[in-house]
Amino acid sequence: MTLDLSVYLVTDPELCGERGVLATVEAAVRGGVSAVQLRDKQATGRQLLAVAVDLARALDGTGVPLLVNDRLDIALAAGADGVHLGQSDLDVESARRLGGPDFLIGLTVSRAEEIALASALPVGTVDYLGIGPVFPTTTKRDALGALGLDAVAALSSSTELPCVGIGGITAQNAASVWATGLDGLAVASAVCAAVDPSAAAAAIKGARS
Amino acid sequence: MTLDLSVYLVTDPELCGERGVLATVEAAVRGGVSAVQLRDKQATGRQLLAVAVDLARALDGTGVPLLVNDRLDIALAAGADGVHLGQSDLDVESARRLGGPDFLIGLTVSRAEEIALASALPVGTVDYLGIGPVFPTTTKRDALGALGLDAVAALSSSTELPCVGIGGITAQNAASVWATGLDGLAVASAVCAAVDPSAAAAAIKGARS
Repeated sequence: MTLDLSVYLVTDPELCGERGVLATVEAAVRGGVSAVQLRDKQATGRQLLAVAVDLARALDGTGVPLLVNDRLDIALAAGADGVHLGQSDLDVESARRLGGPDFLIGLTVSRAEEIALASALPVGTVDYLGIGPVFPTTTKRDALGALGLDAVAALSSSTELPCVGIGGITAQNAASVWATGLDGLAVASAVCAAVDPSAAAAAIKGARS
Repeated sequence: MTLDLSVYLVTDPELCGERGVLATVEAAVRGGVSAVQLRDKQATGRQLLAVAVDLARALDGTGVPLLVNDRLDIALAAGADGVHLGQSDLDVESARRLGGPDFLIGLTVSRAEEIALASALPVGTVDYLGIGPVFPTTTKRDALGALGLDAVAALSSSTELPCVGIGGITAQNAASVWATGLDGLAVASAVCAAVDPSAAAAAIKGARS
């Protein structure tokens, strides 16, 4: 399966609200989301596993991969397609060893040194990089200062790995982010908190020229 | 390797203080600790992995198994011997599937129904149960009300699985806990916060008549 990162949804249970994560993801996929990352830093392992199992079932057959943020064990237990790791999570080499060759592994990077380290790993260790925050964001409380479009363009062009921009991306600014040459745009609030997640996803996708 | 749960140390980085978790564990093992559980709910995955790797190296060849609380992925990445799971963590059947037949899996139980469910699982799913809290405890902030010695004795005698008591156990009350017939006593503050962790571990062990 070719990895399509173009519209990459990061779920947030608070932003999804009463609609819930599952219904939000299903609507977003109808609108063109091509990859889904389950992210919930507050959930217990048991709760996260339950949501991951539901999402894996919903995405089965759609071609849209499911990744779990941080928790490789939960991803493996749920039969998810991969894990997304931050710089303070389990290292990607350990994750590759445990997940096997076909498991998807994404890594968040924010600095040139982090991209250089990731790019120097054996081919097949990391499948893609998440670069951000592109713009200021309130979704991820521990996020660093915004990089801005020029820095994101420079960072993504410094690696052969596919790159997804993340942080503050909306339907309004999506065209400017696409213009940096990224392989995909990651969105949380722009889709999770939208009245119509499907239309919001379609708008992000359609902003690519 | 026969699993010796008799003096089961649960690490707490705050209680270990400046001495650190590694030095505390090394001293405690000299005093007779027979199993070590790395527990740190505040650490990032990366931090937890680093400590787990250090402990695994220190315990290698001692015959004392290392278990990691909650995080099966970190346990596997560090080459630890097992994982200890609570009722809100990854389920033990998923953990057994991912960890393989020789991986140690412990489960915290506090009620007769939880013990009945664990005991009804296929043989080899769970290696031991942690029953508690025996006494009131301040180490584990989300712990339930204390069970008391009579309830612990009744619970542990209701299952064929090895049982470790946990919660508020000290050198002073250890003899009374041993008298319930448990296979082991789990201690955190009684050893981690002791001036002499080795002597504290020896006192817990020596209280068994």
